[in-house]
Amino acid sequence: MPASWETLQVQSTARVDLVDITARVAALLPGGAEGALVLFTPHTTAALLLNEHEPGLLQDLRVWLERLAPAGEPYAHNRVDDNADAHLRAVALGPSLVLPVAQGRLALGRWQRIFLVELDGPRTRQVRLRLLA
Amino acid sequence: MPASWETLQVQSTARVDLVDITARVAALLPGGAEGALVLFTPHTTAALLLNEHEPGLLQDLRVWLERLAPAGEPYAHNRVDDNADAHLRAVALGPSLVLPVAQGRLALGRWQRIFLVELDGPRTRQVRLRLLA
Amino acid sequence: MPASWETLQVQSTARVDLVDITARVAALLPGGAEGALVLFTPHTTAALLLNEHEPGLLQDLRVWLERLAPAGEPYAHNRVDDNADAHLRAVALGPSLVLPVAQGRLALGRWQRIFLVELDGPRTRQVRLRLLA
Repeated sequence: MPASWETLQVQSTARVDLVDITARVAALLPGGAEGALVLFTPHTTAALLLNEHEPGLLQDLRVWLERLAPAGEPYAHNRVDDNADAHLRAVALGPSLVLPVAQGRLALGRWQRIFLVELDGPRTRQVRLRLLA
Repeated sequence: MPASWETLQVQSTARVDLVDITARVAALLPGGAEGALVLFTPHTTAALLLNEHEPGLLQDLRVWLERLAPAGEPYAHNRVDDNADAHLRAVALGPSLVLPVAQGRLALGRWQRIFLVELDGPRTRQVRLRLLA
Repeated sequence: MPASWETLQVQSTARVDLVDITARVAALLPGGAEGALVLFTPHTTAALLLNEHEPGLLQDLRVWLERLAPAGEPYAHNRVDDNADAHLRAVALGPSLVLPVAQGRLALGRWQRIFLVELDGPRTRQVRLRLLA
């Protein structure tokens, strides 16, 4: 449980994929936990995101990420590794979240769900978690 | 005071609105508080933002949000609820801030102010706060 | 060391500049530190970013920031101060990071480096840091 850093392994199944990890995160919280839960993904082509889990919206998010940093541009990074679009999208979304925990539960809004955003998959990714009191 | 989670109620007055909550947040800090203040908004079509409170800039931010995720596109989510643009803008801005507190005061830069960003209002929104030592 | 707020001074050398501060941040951590490191920059035209330090990618990031909020638009803020583009880019990137620390070291991914992003330089900027246990 997150009194030290815990790690979740998350498997993505497409180059761009949104994996809902809310239930797995919630299951790590012990009864009576109070504080702020930090989530961090140690990757430069993945990110974390908090929003609604509605299939149409997930499709809109994929289209929006493609417009935010299109694949197929003449990126300088692509002389090294053909994934600059994934890095730029990860920068826009960010690698961490800080979430409220009260009475042993995530105190999220009704529609908020936690997503690992895969931007250069499919791969196995990590999410590190720790509860701050 | 934020040794547990406190909640502010914030009223917005337009579909897209930037509400400066700096003074209300500062007023919650007890004398001598030290640490990091976490702010979190439990909504999927609102966000938090830290930047300058200058009327021209607030107008620029509204124009920029419209360009970042235009209203009136054929979003898939709009078959469910006509606000996909608001969700995408909330994802870009994010639901939380972590701010320095020292000697009982927000240790912000001279021009930094805290805004609740309403993206699908007008509504009453919540901001949850907790001081981490 | 970050049991209270520490400050780094960071010098930028161009209007838009990405300064890798990873080694300076790591050097502040005492042996055995455990927790989450909060980094915060008290400016409205600078930001913090975590991603790969590869010269081509840094060039791509500068091009991408220019497209995200172009200079030379008729911004309302520019009647006050000619840097609205810098404010908008700072909003997109954000003023803070929360990073894992374990056994006295930053527990980052292999390719993750910490950058102060200058958006209206060259200037001397501050980064405030504190370890939360």
